[in-house]
Amino acid sequence: MTYCVALRLNRGIVFAADTRTNAGVDNIAQFRKIHYWSKPGERVLVLLTAGNLSLTQSVVSLINEQLAGSEEDPEAPSLFNVPTMYRAARLVGDAVRAIRAIDGPALEATKTGFTGSFILGGQIGSEPPRLFQVYSEGNFIEATDETPFFQIGEHKYGKPILDRVAQPTMRLGEAAKLVLLSFDSTLRSNLSVGMPIDILLYERDSLKLHREKRIYQDDEYFKKLSASWSEALRSAFTKIEEFNV
Amino acid sequence: MTYCVALRLNRGIVFAADTRTNAGVDNIAQFRKIHYWSKPGERVLVLLTAGNLSLTQSVVSLINEQLAGSEEDPEAPSLFNVPTMYRAARLVGDAVRAIRAIDGPALEATKTGFTGSFILGGQIGSEPPRLFQVYSEGNFIEATDETPFFQIGEHKYGKPILDRVAQPTMRLGEAAKLVLLSFDSTLRSNLSVGMPIDILLYERDSLKLHREKRIYQDDEYFKKLSASWSEALRSAFTKIEEFNV
Repeated sequence: MTYCVALRLNRGIVFAADTRTNAGVDNIAQFRKIHYWSKPGERVLVLLTAGNLSLTQSVVSLINEQLAGSEEDPEAPSLFNVPTMYRAARLVGDAVRAIRAIDGPALEATKTGFTGSFILGGQIGSEPPRLFQVYSEGNFIEATDETPFFQIGEHKYGKPILDRVAQPTMRLGEAAKLVLLSFDSTLRSNLSVGMPIDILLYERDSLKLHREKRIYQDDEYFKKLSASWSEALRSAFTKIEEFNV
Repeated sequence: MTYCVALRLNRGIVFAADTRTNAGVDNIAQFRKIHYWSKPGERVLVLLTAGNLSLTQSVVSLINEQLAGSEEDPEAPSLFNVPTMYRAARLVGDAVRAIRAIDGPALEATKTGFTGSFILGGQIGSEPPRLFQVYSEGNFIEATDETPFFQIGEHKYGKPILDRVAQPTMRLGEAAKLVLLSFDSTLRSNLSVGMPIDILLYERDSLKLHREKRIYQDDEYFKKLSASWSEALRSAFTKIEEFNV
């Protein structure tokens, strides 16, 4: 499995993804699930991927081929020339549908199925930063202030803390802390999600990517975060009155 | 969906189950998912159920028919005469297999499928309390000190807190508090699990059932627990250093 989350804030967007893939628990591997494209000063686009690795890699390859193609034909739509994030989400959806047309029937004839989901976020020009979740059918939804985050993959373990704490008014560093706590809960309860974690903080209107980190198992901040949180939960737990009947 | 959890302690067993069933989000209903049988001073058996309601109700009906039948034929095995909890788990597994023989083929020919899972716990005579999880195939596993709890149904949201805090050395009231916190996280994140919650605390060697409660939405203890926990999590969150890169 996979766990990816992105949180849209007034001040930007925080993206994070684990790096574990598995075909059964006895066949795990490490793959990058965060992909990005940028023209500094003009646009930044970040894509998180979950699902069949063959599908998600094919979608990324198709997007990259469009970029290469657009040098020859500047009119052909690509992530580097679409005028809005909405158009960028359409391109990702179209790429998913193109791969479905090729691989869908064979996969759906088996137990594997054709499953994939994507989170696309970023900023183009003077538009505010926008965040989308693209489904394996190619359609998509956009994050709003009421629901400022999207999760894909193994999302349930890490959802309660996001439901309680996530707010669009958070600072980027505060939201990154929240996202990492959501990963901490998921990593503890589910083996199919594994470190390292890739995290990326996009600052609104910066139109560049300069705050990114790969967090390994022995990362000092993450170890401290995880230990402090466990300690805080246990301490909070003991302070609540026992149930009696 | 459903959420049920049971936690085996040195001092007894805590059981809890929600009461919501749904066939689509537009068709929800309330059903009891905790069932028990006792001969005070001799045995106590508690069954939690998740899955197709037709299957789980049929299993309970079959078990009750065995009890009624055993008055006529005291040799026929039933929950009231099996000598150990292991034999009781076998009976539940046999009942699941009997229903599968009747309803399995028709259900498995559709998207519905034949899905059900059960938690059986209790104590018979001088045996220590034991806790089992019975699968829809009728086979089962038993809780140990390393893994003292079982969850069935919508288990992922409420697992992280159990993974962090559950210990066999807990007091019953402390474990009940933990179980209710696990429900609180699940209820907040998933509509298909709904109040009221049935909770039952079995005290080791008491061989009777006398600590049971149905917890409604407006329950004072639960409201306080939920508010204190939210407050404690938010406060713990603010105390952790922000992420920076």
